[in-house]
Order: sequence, then structure tokens, then C-alpha cells
Amino acid sequence: MHTGATVNLRILPVALIAALVSTAACADEGMWQPSQMPELAAQLKARGLQMDPAALSNLAGKPLDAVISLGGCTASFVSPQGLVVTNHHCAYGAIQYNSTPQRDLLANGFVAGSFSDELPAEPNARVYVTQDIRDVTPAITDGLAALDGKARYDAIDARSKALVADCEQPGGLRCNVYNFNGGLQFSLIRQLEIRDVRLVYAPSDAIGKFGGDEDNFEWPRHTGDFAFYRAYVGKDGKPAAYAKDNVPFQPASWLTVSQEPLVEGDYVMVTGYPGSTNRYRLPDEVKEAIDWRYPVMVKYFRDSLETIARTTAQDKAAELKYASTVAGYNNVLKLYQGNLDGFARMSDPVGMKRAREDELKAWLAGRGAQGKAATAAITELERELAADRVTRERDLWFGNVVNGGLAGTAVRLYRHAIEQAKPDAEREVGYQDRDAPRIKGAMEAFDKRYDARVDQALMALRLQRYASQVPAAERVPELDAWLGIGPQDTVIADLDARLDALYAGTQLGEAAKRLQWLEADQAAIQSADDSALAFAVAMMPVILRQQADNEARSGRISALRPQYMQAMIDFNKAQGKPVYPDANSSLRITFGTVNGYSPRDGVRMTPFTTLAGIVAKTTGVEPFITPKAEMDAIVAGEGAQYRMDSLGDVPVNFLSDVDTTGGNSGSPTLNAKGELVGLLFDGNYESLNAGWIFNPELTRSIHVDTRYMRWVMDEVDHAERLLQEMGLPHD
Amino acid sequence: MHTGATVNLRILPVALIAALVSTAACADEGMWQPSQMPELAAQLKARGLQMDPAALSNLAGKPLDAVISLGGCTASFVSPQGLVVTNHHCAYGAIQYNSTPQRDLLANGFVAGSFSDELPAEPNARVYVTQDIRDVTPAITDGLAALDGKARYDAIDARSKALVADCEQPGGLRCNVYNFNGGLQFSLIRQLEIRDVRLVYAPSDAIGKFGGDEDNFEWPRHTGDFAFYRAYVGKDGKPAAYAKDNVPFQPASWLTVSQEPLVEGDYVMVTGYPGSTNRYRLPDEVKEAIDWRYPVMVKYFRDSLETIARTTAQDKAAELKYASTVAGYNNVLKLYQGNLDGFARMSDPVGMKRAREDELKAWLAGRGAQGKAATAAITELERELAADRVTRERDLWFGNVVNGGLAGTAVRLYRHAIEQAKPDAEREVGYQDRDAPRIKGAMEAFDKRYDARVDQALMALRLQRYASQVPAAERVPELDAWLGIGPQDTVIADLDARLDALYAGTQLGEAAKRLQWLEADQAAIQSADDSALAFAVAMMPVILRQQADNEARSGRISALRPQYMQAMIDFNKAQGKPVYPDANSSLRITFGTVNGYSPRDGVRMTPFTTLAGIVAKTTGVEPFITPKAEMDAIVAGEGAQYRMDSLGDVPVNFLSDVDTTGGNSGSPTLNAKGELVGLLFDGNYESLNAGWIFNPELTRSIHVDTRYMRWVMDEVDHAERLLQEMGLPHD
Repeated sequence: MHTGATVNLRILPVALIAALVSTAACADEGMWQPSQMPELAAQLKARGLQMDPAALSNLAGKPLDAVISLGGCTASFVSPQGLVVTNHHCAYGAIQYNSTPQRDLLANGFVAGSFSDELPAEPNARVYVTQDIRDVTPAITDGLAALDGKARYDAIDARSKALVADCEQPGGLRCNVYNFNGGLQFSLIRQLEIRDVRLVYAPSDAIGKFGGDEDNFEWPRHTGDFAFYRAYVGKDGKPAAYAKDNVPFQPASWLTVSQEPLVEGDYVMVTGYPGSTNRYRLPDEVKEAIDWRYPVMVKYFRDSLETIARTTAQDKAAELKYASTVAGYNNVLKLYQGNLDGFARMSDPVGMKRAREDELKAWLAGRGAQGKAATAAITELERELAADRVTRERDLWFGNVVNGGLAGTAVRLYRHAIEQAKPDAEREVGYQDRDAPRIKGAMEAFDKRYDARVDQALMALRLQRYASQVPAAERVPELDAWLGIGPQDTVIADLDARLDALYAGTQLGEAAKRLQWLEADQAAIQSADDSALAFAVAMMPVILRQQADNEARSGRISALRPQYMQAMIDFNKAQGKPVYPDANSSLRITFGTVNGYSPRDGVRMTPFTTLAGIVAKTTGVEPFITPKAEMDAIVAGEGAQYRMDSLGDVPVNFLSDVDTTGGNSGSPTLNAKGELVGLLFDGNYESLNAGWIFNPELTRSIHVDTRYMRWVMDEVDHAERLLQEMGLPHD
Repeated sequence: MHTGATVNLRILPVALIAALVSTAACADEGMWQPSQMPELAAQLKARGLQMDPAALSNLAGKPLDAVISLGGCTASFVSPQGLVVTNHHCAYGAIQYNSTPQRDLLANGFVAGSFSDELPAEPNARVYVTQDIRDVTPAITDGLAALDGKARYDAIDARSKALVADCEQPGGLRCNVYNFNGGLQFSLIRQLEIRDVRLVYAPSDAIGKFGGDEDNFEWPRHTGDFAFYRAYVGKDGKPAAYAKDNVPFQPASWLTVSQEPLVEGDYVMVTGYPGSTNRYRLPDEVKEAIDWRYPVMVKYFRDSLETIARTTAQDKAAELKYASTVAGYNNVLKLYQGNLDGFARMSDPVGMKRAREDELKAWLAGRGAQGKAATAAITELERELAADRVTRERDLWFGNVVNGGLAGTAVRLYRHAIEQAKPDAEREVGYQDRDAPRIKGAMEAFDKRYDARVDQALMALRLQRYASQVPAAERVPELDAWLGIGPQDTVIADLDARLDALYAGTQLGEAAKRLQWLEADQAAIQSADDSALAFAVAMMPVILRQQADNEARSGRISALRPQYMQAMIDFNKAQGKPVYPDANSSLRITFGTVNGYSPRDGVRMTPFTTLAGIVAKTTGVEPFITPKAEMDAIVAGEGAQYRMDSLGDVPVNFLSDVDTTGGNSGSPTLNAKGELVGLLFDGNYESLNAGWIFNPELTRSIHVDTRYMRWVMDEVDHAERLLQEMGLPHD
């Protein structure tokens, strides 16, 4: 599944999330802002678009107003009754939530026979409908030039929070300020927040997750990665909490499912909410990712997985608790290794970035005072980033120690108490009133994925890495004191004893205790008789000190990075190339064609897979089990109307060269007329480092073909009610 | 490398070497006899042949008289001066033979600057030029009906030997009787035997063996698998032993190297000497191979490799001695596993064969007395084959015990003495005067690949398998007695002690002793004070008894199999389909087109690889090292004239759907005009079970493109003298 960006956001320090030189605004590269579409009209037409490009910049019209966010995934309305289609893996939590041993929806799938059969999705499931994107750059940046470092950071933070609070004031809305091009532009995005989301239809795991982790990030692919929700609102048409007599939301627009053939070379576009990319990083940032960050993280996740395997070997209950952690770590490991493999495939990615940077500087040299100022800003930005790298080992390993597992829970409880003492507007993001339900949910759920013995072993791994990898000059005295070591010590002599005491002396493994501490104030936690809370209290001054330092650096960088991006945009404009901003979870459009690729000499990945390929891949062993009903339908040749002439078979998944990343999962794939032809759900292995550098030869997105979706609905799951609702013929 | 058939011949019992139902004489299936080409005229023209098909049945004209056998490999004349091109792996022995630590031709390659620089190949190197193929069916089979079993076998054997002796009488010739279609037809093939063969040119291992064992049987491929010999004869133009003043042989014809582009879809044909196939086996024979023989052999070779690895772990000298055995075992293991994988890919190979067999029987049922007789013969053949299967475990494991390593050498020495006591014409094949040099050579060379400790461990493995797998009723009393076990015992209690004594009490590890015993008579060996010879003397009665039994069965089968094949040919003819005989090392022609394949849904193997692919595959670690001279030439873009327009690069290897097997290695690949466009050197992994069933979708041959050969000769190795000799332009 397509989780690249989400993970990047979690692992990379905030200071790193920004922008770098892209060598070429190649045909199919680009996650464009809707407002940029008119300037791309010629390119869109050349690729085959049969709509007015201006329609693609209109948030209030079809197709854009039918494209919605689920928070982390994308989806779209496909009927006037608020029917929503997204990926099976995006609806996984809701399917799991509604499953019981007696009624296993994961194993058996689920088709609601009527509106009243539709099941409430998990409590946190949301549908966000983008209503407005407003440029708030002046409101955020006016007068900032007078402020430096931390003051600048705090000003941006306070202004953003005020805009959000004001925007959300009417209720039923979720607003956020998005930073584009490293702070060159800020937008306030207002979304309708629909809270009553119901599960309507999901094929069985064997279809929706066919290929599982083995096929994750791989082509050829045969996954029926689709599922349906429905958005419900109160009788007044306004968002409301779940209530039995809520009514289906009636969107202004919904997508039409295509009934025309889609073939190789056809125009396609994907509209959705890509999470994060690093396309405009400076050469030294790319170099650090290749030389240090990815290798270090690959080793850390490998060792963590080994630690979990070792400590759960004889303990089935613990193994189950860590099953999803293991799946997540494996996913991240593949992503990081894929990044390294991708960079290794390129002859000299850093040199390529440096060459582009040199071109930019040469161009700036000929632009007088303005060019000189930009060059000075770039030099200063490089200096700030270099200074940031000095503490990278400390930031990484101390951060892991105080954020992970039991320690992280204790730290969050204490931080919560600290923030609660402030007025809401001044609280840290994540600890405001609007975040309360999520914090409580996380505290309730913590021990479902926690086993003290396993957590202790992982804590030991992190602490050992802290001691062995953080240089003496950067060591944290408070942590060294807690560990009983000096800054030169790279081994922690009595670590096991210290951790035995830590884990023996805490009650945070119990949900009731955690929820109790969530009500407590600072003083209560400071005097608590709980070893984990005591650890949190001991580390909090460091955390706050480091946060202040990081915010100061972030503030300084936020004054420099926009100048760099402005120079880059001007430079590209001078060459006739538009620049798209790095992904930031806001609505984007990417376009290209249905297209295979050659992973190596003598081999070509062809862009469509087939039902016959499902049969060939089926082993009867997870994750390659095909339900009997599907196998029977394939063997009987059911649903000939869904076949593609050139294949003589029903297309299952297809490849295109559009530019997507994590967050795009579930995005509608539209044809030249704007009709739904697929759902984006993954990228190929070669796309894993596309977050940094888009390679037009190798970067490919993977989509489930709506012909396969319709075939499954019609011939396997008999979801005729929904086909009819979407205006589609069926057997 | 392409060694399928050779190995089949070694492992499968003689009784199994024959014929079975082919489901379809598909376009590109078929290893045709030259005499069959006129009846295929329409098919050849449809595929694109631009020559008179009749020319392809003329042994005395171009191109066939330029196609020569090296004994196990194929080659061709490419100049009027007897210049011969074949695969690098076919000339490997000669390159190795001429290499010294001071002058390592394997590592550095070799280009003779002039005729006088050309190096004598290894002593046993031969060039065989087919002069005549004469039908001798009546001479072999007249009056055989009166004879049964052993008498029939002996008559065929004696008649064949007489024909061969008579044919070879003038000297300088090698003659053999070939059995076609299970004994339906016999041909006497006369070949000129050229004994002075010299090495002219070989690229370095890094080019000629690029990809090594890792790429063996795989596509994509980038191997420069070509090398050049020259045939020399006495000044009188007749074959002669090596002599400095011998002169280049002047062939009547030689192939023209194509200077025209070859592209996907073009007609190609391969002429050569394929070793053995099993296309016309009965369903039960296919079933036995799938259910028993291949799985048993896969396990045996795996365990043998493990045994060698274990016993050579601390012994570098022993490891080197077994290096080529290990390579050979790995090759066979891949071949056998590939056969199993190939069968597993088919839905029901045995059922497919059975369905075709049922069709044949239904057709015969409508053909009166003749049909009835054929049906009875098939039933009787099935009975004989079933009876043969009863002793399969004994035949396999006792055979392995008395044929392998030290024991096999002792058995051959004793057998040699026994056969020497008979007149030459009555001796066992392999022990006649004509075989003397090969026997002596093998006895001399034995200890280059022998280490007593390793051999003892392998002997133990074979004996244990004998005891555990041969059922009591089939056990060999003489071997059980030697092992001190009863027929019910499946474990050999004191095996190590027995084998310690066997290996301590023999001197056959010394070459001088072996050569001495090669001069000894039966009585001397019977009274020898050598434990291995004593073992051979003890086992010989069993060997001779089993051989007589097998020959009797072979004689009976030889009366039945031709009737089955005649019925099959008649049945196919009635459907308008010509039938080609199974491969038997005689000259054949196969034709088809340059064509990729889809190994699985969503993936296509494209039919050409490129120089860029060599660069991408190069890791600098064996077997993916590219010589600096080659890398420089690629990077500099040398030799643009060898590029293929559609690739924009020089084609290195290509795929076609022609039908080849082991023995075809080195075969010329000809275009529609009969010009040389490539050299066949391997098949893809999916072709490994094509010996049994040709799959037109997946079975592919792999060729080295003559454009790459010429590029290497011109731009890397500067073999201008040879390019000139072949009439080719060069830089």
C-alpha cells in the first residue's frame, strides 16, 4: 500500500520537511495545485485531456468537489446519495472494527443489502470535503521580517492557530493552514467534516488484500483494493455524530464511472491528497538521506524486527499484539530499502542535484542585487542545515527514546498536563481541545499493541543506540544521569537492572490508570509514584529545551527556504517550466498516461494484469488465496462485457506514469473526460525513492481498474444495488 | 549452458529413451530431419524463409555442409580456410587446456595473430563433418521378427557394429548407426573426423561466460558465448593427427555472416545436433518422471552437493578438485528442478498425454486388423514399461553405487579386462579398439577430480539410499552380503568401518596403478590385492546379469515401440501433421521467429538485450565483471555500425521460439536467406522441461547476436584478421 509520505513525515525531523532542486518538470512529473491547471493547458491537451483545463481548477465543480479526504487516504463520491469509493486498505480499520469471530467481515467481505444494513465505521472515521482554499500568505507573513528564530516560529504558529480557530468556529468544519514551497505561500483550507461514515461494501480480504505484504510495492499486481462507504449527515443536511436516523449526504457532484475502454497510452489523471515529498531538497540534504539517515534507519528497523521476533518467539499473545507493528515496520523497512536501492540505481543523484543547484547559482549571478540576495539566502540556508546536522544523532536517538512505547506514553501524559494549564490557543499542536478525542482514543488503545517484555527490549535497543551513536558533545546530561553513564561511555553497564526497575514500577500498562492520569494536573504527575511518569518528568526539561532550539532553527529556516524556492521558481519560469510545490496533504492533480516500464534490459512490465493472472498467482496459501466464488466466475468466463479486447480478459490492475505518493491511496483515477477508470492504490518498487527524485522511465503508479471492480461487484459479490445506484448496467 | 539432453541420457535408463505423444505439431515445435524439409515448404514460406526449402535437405550443399559437430556441441565453418565458430562454453576445454598461470587464456582471452599462432586444442577435440546419412533400416531389421528379447537386442547390436566397422574402414571417418522413432528407422551416418583442431580466438571469460552459473538458463542474458577454432588436415587434404605443417581444411561451403538487420518477428532457423528429447513418451512414462524420477534425483543431487560442501569445508585442495563436479551437479539440479517447475506450471501434463493417447486408440479402433494389431502392441508396450518400473529403485541406486567415483573406476577396469578377452566386434560398446584413447584418457584424468575422503562420503550416501529405498524383493544379494545386511535392513550398521577398509585397501587413487591395471587380464584382477577391484569382482556378476535382463527388455521394447510410433505417425498424417523424430544427436533443423514471451501476467521478456544492459548488470563481482576495454568501448559509443535502430544500441543476445536442446550449443542461427545471425547457446528457464513437452507460449531459445560478436571482435579484441577472413568490414 501507498504509505511513503506518511512515514517520511513521522521519521524525518521537521526541519527537513521542505524543498529542493528538481532537475526537470518532465511531462508526467508533478503534483499540481488545482489553481495551476490553466497554465498547463497545452500540456494537458497534448497528453489527451478532453475537458476544459479550467474545470480542473474549480473546487466547487465536478470533478474536484467529488474528491474527498479520509484523513491519510483519498476517496470520491460516486452517487448523489453520498456513496464513497476508496481503497480496501483505507477502509480496513472500519472493516476490522465491525468484524467479530462470529461475523468476520475481513474474511467474508460485506455487502449491505439496504441503507439500513450499512454499518457505522470506526468512531474516528471521517469524510472531509474540501470547500475552500484561501491564500493567507499576508496574514501569516506580514511583518515577520522583523522577527528572528523562535519569535518568528511562534508568530507563524499563533497566527495559524487563530486562523484555524476562526475558520472552524461555525462548527462541522475542519480547517488547516498549509505551507507551500517551504513557506513561500500559506493557504487556509476549509473542509466539511462528516462524522457519520458507514461501511457499505467491501470485498473479502482474499480479493481486497490479494498478494498482501508480499506484493506490496510490487508489479505485477492483482489486488481488488476497493471498498465503499457512505457519508451520512443530520436531517438538516449538516454534519452530525452517528445517529440511526441520519440521512445520506447529498454531494453537489459525484463521479461517473466510465463505461468506455481504457487502453495503453490513454490519458489518465489522479486527483487526491498526497502527503509529503522532498523534491526540492538541497544537495546536502539528499546526500545525508543516502549516506546516513536511510542506512541508519534500515538497520534500526531490522534490529527492531529481530528484537520483536526474539521476545515474542514463545508468546503467542505478545506476537499477536505486535502483528500490526511488525507489518508496519516491514512496510517502512521496504520503503527505506527501496529508497536506497532507487538512489543506488542512479549514477549520481547528489551530483545531479548539485549540477542543478550550480545552474541556479550561475543564473542568479547574472541578476544583480536581487540575485545576490537570493544567493546569500541559499548560502545561509546551507549553513543552517549543516548546523542542524550536527545534532542529528542526538535528535534521532533521544527522540526515539522519549517517543516510543511506554516512555512515549508517559511523556505524552505529562505533556498533556502541562499543556492543559495553558489557554487553548497557546497549547502545543496535538494537545488542543480539538485533539481531545484522538488523545483519549490513543490512551485507551495503547495496550492492545503493548507487551512489557517486548517494549522493554525495544527500549533497551534504543538506549543502547543512543549511547553508542550520539557523540559526547551532543549527549543529553539528564538521560546520561538516568542511565548512570558519562558522556564518553558508549556502553550502559547495568541497563537491564535499570529497565527492570522502570517496567516494574509503572502502572501505565493499564488503560484505567492511563485515563486517570489524563485527568491529572502537572503537580500530581510530578509527585506520582510511577517510574515511567518519573522518567517523563526527568526528561521533560530536555524535550522542551530541544523543542525550543528546533523551533528557533525552524524559524530561521522559514525565513530562508522561501527565498530559495522563489529563486527556483523564477529560474524555472525563465526556462518556461512551471514548478509544483512539494506534496503537503493538500488537494493536487497529477496527469500522464497508462504506461508500462522496463525494470531492466530485456524485461518489460506491461500495463495491465488479468483474471488469468489471478488464477496463475493463486497458490491456496496466504496471501494468494482466491475465493471459490471468484475462481468459479473466472473459470466460467462470467462477465465478458468487462473484458478488454486486446487482452481477451478482464483487466485487474493497471500502471500509469502519474506522480503520486502516500496519502493518494484511494484517489480516483480519471480518464480524458474526467470519468472514473480506476483507484490509485500503490506505486511500484522503483517508485519508492520518487519522493526525492521522479524518474520518468521507472516511476509508476498502480491502480485497480474499475472494470475489475465492476466485475467483482457483478459476478462475485452481487452488489447490484450499488451498481444500479452508480447508474451502471449489470447481469 | 544448454546441456539438457546430455544429462538426460546419462541419468535415464536406456529403456526409457524413446518416444511419446506430442499434442500438436505447432508452428515452431519440431527438430526436423533435413529430409523432411520439402514437405514443410508451405510452413517455411509462411514463416518467411527466402530460400528454396529443398536446399535445406541437401547435405552436400550450403548451408548444411557447413554445419559441423564437435561431439556434444555444434559448430559451423565460416570461411574457406576452415575457420569454425562455436560457443565459448563448447571451446572451454581447449581454452583451459592452453592456459597456464603465466598465460591465463580464460582470464585474458586469446586472439591468434596469424595461422602459426593458432594453438592445438585439447587432444580429444574433434570436428565432425557429416558426409552421408544412409537409411539402413532393412540391414538392421530384416528377419528380426523371428527373434525375441535378448537375441533381438544382440542382433541389432551386432549388425550395427558391423555396419560401423565397414563404414570406418577407409580411415579418417567416424560412423554411427542412429535409431529414429524408437527403432522404426535406422540411419548410418558417416562423418569426416578431423583430429587437428586449433584454437583461433576466444574472448575473455568475463565476456564469454558473463553471468556464469547465475544466469545459466535465464533471460535476460548478456553472454558473449562465442569462440573460434580452425580445422587442420594433412597436406594431402585428409584428416591427420596434429602436426606443425598440417594445413587449414578447405570446406566445400561456409556460412556467410549476415550484414542485414535482424528484428523481432524475423524468420530464424537453427541447424545442429540436438542430443535427446522425450516428446513421444507414453503417459505412464511422463507420470513416472514427474512423480518419482525427478523428485528423487533433485533430492539426491541436493544431498550430494551438501555432502561435498561438508567434506571439502576445511580442505581447499579437495574443494578445487570437486569444483567442476559441483558446477555440473548444480547445473543438473537446476535442470531437474526446472523440469518439475515446468510440469507444475501445466494444469495436467499427464492428462494431456493421456487424452492424446485416447484419441490415437479411438482412431486405431476404426482401422480394422491393422489398427487392432497396433493397439495390441501399445498395450504390450505399456506392460513392458510397467514391468521395467518394478526394478527402478534397484536400477537407479545399484547403478549409482557401481558407476560412481572409485567403485565405478574399479568396475570399468575389470570390465575392460573382460571385454579385451573377446574379439573386437563382440565387445561391449565403449570398450572396443576405437574407444581405447578415450578410456586411457579417462583413467589418467580420474584423480584430478577425486579425493578419497569426499568420494567415500558420496559412496556412503549412495549405499544408504540403496538400503533405504530399494524394496526387499528387488535387493541385490551380492551387495547386501558385502554390506553385511539382510534384504529387510534399511540401515547399514557398520558402513563407516566397511568403507574405511575399502578406501584404505586400494591403490586406484594413483594414476600409474590405474594405467597398470588397464593392461591386466581378468585373472590378474580377480587375484589382485586391492579392495576396490575386489568389490568390482564381487559385483560384476550382478552387473552382467542386470545388463542381460535390461537388454532382453530393450529387445522386446524395440519390437513394440516402432509399432507405436508408426501408429502415431499414421494418425498425425491423417490429420495433416508431419511428425519429427525425438532428438538423437543427428543433424536437425528447427525454424521459427525472433520472439519474446510472457513468463507471467503483467511481464514480458523482450527479445533483445543491449550493451547498456551489460553496464547495468556489471557489479564488479564474479560473474558480473566487465573488462575495462569493453566498458570503455561501451561508454565511448564505439561501433555505432553494429547498433540496431529500434534499440539505439548494439544487440547482445536474442530470444527465438525455435526448438532446441542440449547438443545444439554452438549451432548456427540463420536468417531467412540462410545467413549467420547468431549462435544458439541456451534455453530459458521455462524451456527446461521442453524435452518432454514443447510449450509454444514459453519455450524459448537464447542466441548470441552476431552483431555483438562482431562488435566485440572489432571494438574490444581487435580480431580484424578474422573479420577480414569472414569478408566483414571493420573499423
